[in-house]
Amino acid sequence: MFQRRRADMYTWMARNSITIVVLEDFEGKRDPAIRYFSGHPGDALLLLTITGHSVLCPWDEHLARYMADVDVITPYSEYGRDPVRAVRSLVDKIGTPAGSRIEIPETTAYPTFLRYVEILSEFNVQCRTGGAGTEVARMRAIKDPVEIATLEKACAITDAIVNQIEKLLITGKIKTEADLALLIEREARAAGAEGTGFETLAAGPLRSYGIHAFPAWTNSPFPGKGLSILDFGVKFEGYTSDVTLTVAAGELTKAQEKQLALMEKAYKTALALYKPGVATRTVSRAVDELFSRAKRSMPHALGHGIGLEAHEGPAIRSRDDNKWVFEPGMVVTLEPGLYDPETGGCRLENDILITETGNRVLTNARVIRIS
Amino acid sequence: MFQRRRADMYTWMARNSITIVVLEDFEGKRDPAIRYFSGHPGDALLLLTITGHSVLCPWDEHLARYMADVDVITPYSEYGRDPVRAVRSLVDKIGTPAGSRIEIPETTAYPTFLRYVEILSEFNVQCRTGGAGTEVARMRAIKDPVEIATLEKACAITDAIVNQIEKLLITGKIKTEADLALLIEREARAAGAEGTGFETLAAGPLRSYGIHAFPAWTNSPFPGKGLSILDFGVKFEGYTSDVTLTVAAGELTKAQEKQLALMEKAYKTALALYKPGVATRTVSRAVDELFSRAKRSMPHALGHGIGLEAHEGPAIRSRDDNKWVFEPGMVVTLEPGLYDPETGGCRLENDILITETGNRVLTNARVIRIS
Repeated sequence: MFQRRRADMYTWMARNSITIVVLEDFEGKRDPAIRYFSGHPGDALLLLTITGHSVLCPWDEHLARYMADVDVITPYSEYGRDPVRAVRSLVDKIGTPAGSRIEIPETTAYPTFLRYVEILSEFNVQCRTGGAGTEVARMRAIKDPVEIATLEKACAITDAIVNQIEKLLITGKIKTEADLALLIEREARAAGAEGTGFETLAAGPLRSYGIHAFPAWTNSPFPGKGLSILDFGVKFEGYTSDVTLTVAAGELTKAQEKQLALMEKAYKTALALYKPGVATRTVSRAVDELFSRAKRSMPHALGHGIGLEAHEGPAIRSRDDNKWVFEPGMVVTLEPGLYDPETGGCRLENDILITETGNRVLTNARVIRIS
Repeated sequence: MFQRRRADMYTWMARNSITIVVLEDFEGKRDPAIRYFSGHPGDALLLLTITGHSVLCPWDEHLARYMADVDVITPYSEYGRDPVRAVRSLVDKIGTPAGSRIEIPETTAYPTFLRYVEILSEFNVQCRTGGAGTEVARMRAIKDPVEIATLEKACAITDAIVNQIEKLLITGKIKTEADLALLIEREARAAGAEGTGFETLAAGPLRSYGIHAFPAWTNSPFPGKGLSILDFGVKFEGYTSDVTLTVAAGELTKAQEKQLALMEKAYKTALALYKPGVATRTVSRAVDELFSRAKRSMPHALGHGIGLEAHEGPAIRSRDDNKWVFEPGMVVTLEPGLYDPETGGCRLENDILITETGNRVLTNARVIRIS
């Protein structure tokens, strides 16, 4: 699996005359492409060479020997835990001809870029959008069958937790945001997940107006009369789901009912457009227009890909620079939301596989009403 | 408090002829300096001007109106949620004279740097190490009295949890890594914390050889005969503690006892050097030498500052480029650790305030022995 993914990358490198691709995953600069290509969960450099070799330089050598499927493992500590020094040494060890093109991550900070250029002065250092990083994002956006099966498993665990939560909410056994967050942490692991895909966002009626409530969850009451939001994901073998429930408790005001109805209309409108060949920007703009006609607006994107990251390609948003088009194998969220300091917030988010003919919704998050 | 911090920054800007400093905090590119200068927890741009003005451009406008102490709030959505476009528009609104020096984050990716330079062509765009980012890191490394009091509170909550954990371990009530992680999540919030400062690392004897066990915690047994590691932090009003316990259960092998004794010797040796005027590299190298004489080595840094981030200045490590010197007001970790796939891993980590005369240990993490 990892070898097949690397083989695809080597082919791309040959076509684009790139001798070495450098991938980097460290604190503050995460890149799950390392896990995608090697199985190693992170804190490492990975070099892929046009000759079809993979060299992993991990912070934790023991963990790498246990988890990584690569040709060579060489501990990061040998290079003073400095990525620039490590790349220089590895480029020499690999025996890279002068003049070769070496592509470093497009996220490389400008001052670090200058250090790479200086230390690799006899090579052609590339740091660009539209290069290897874009190719990896494109590869990762279209899931292979193993990835789809893994995401389906994450989604099945998610749905079981959603059903359990609904029962507990209706019977009054959930009293606080903390009850929900701890239940999700416990149940996800009990079902074999690595954990949650991101910090659970549980926001009762007083806090739901925030897109991402801060702090993410507290000991505040949940649910409570009005609109509450619960946004969580389950990470199974590295792949995370991402769903949002809205909980509507007690009798809602007219404004709240209108807000919910508008959100659900946006959800349906968009879902009909989640199919191969449609530009994701087109869908996002359709929702923008729907909200705009109702004199509302949404302060975040309509959706995004999910996988080894909670947010990855394709982007599903209205910006001019968004060029993504839906393709079979993409697994994405659809998550219209509306927020108001007076009425509170609501968001409905499910995970959706784009198929040859349309889509298949993988999760069953919903608006839960409690009397 | 925020105004005083900003005033210090305006003074630095005047001395260094920087007209505008741009700070950026978004997913994958976190910078708590925004919270440090404004109180706003994140997902925003912050512009500081030499004329003494602060302009916040938040993703979540509602949250900012509730939390931010700044002169102007202008929503990010107005600029297509594109940092480069937002900065260009704000620079115009502020009325910045052509030729002014505008400093963008030193973490700015090279391709984004090129966009900034193009769009701000009539200005002098700075993106460098040793500039504003370094000054902010220096300011943040030396805690003011409010910050010290906040960290003391985080440490007090941490200690109470450590004591509770010790009792539960001794009485056999903790059975799995999950029991510990969920207890910490629950108790931290119950004590008024925002949450944990980072994902709790609970690694029973089978997994403790990893520096940072992967996954961070599971349903595996904890403790179990041998060496287990528990590494966690409590985040109180944004400031996080960071401690590590080693749990030694049952009779240890000679090799394990030797490993523990060496770690504790390193801890004591280093603690005596945690005082003003000592280069942090000197301390780290003293521990390297101690380990080296025992034919062991430590695969991570000896410590780091804590505050709004779990890892911030000062660095406490052996690298040549580490120029940090201990100063009063720094709050840092001391965390020697040794890892071995055969014997397992151990690490002891406490949080330490550097004082005028030496240091004060703020937490009471320890090796807990269970028969």
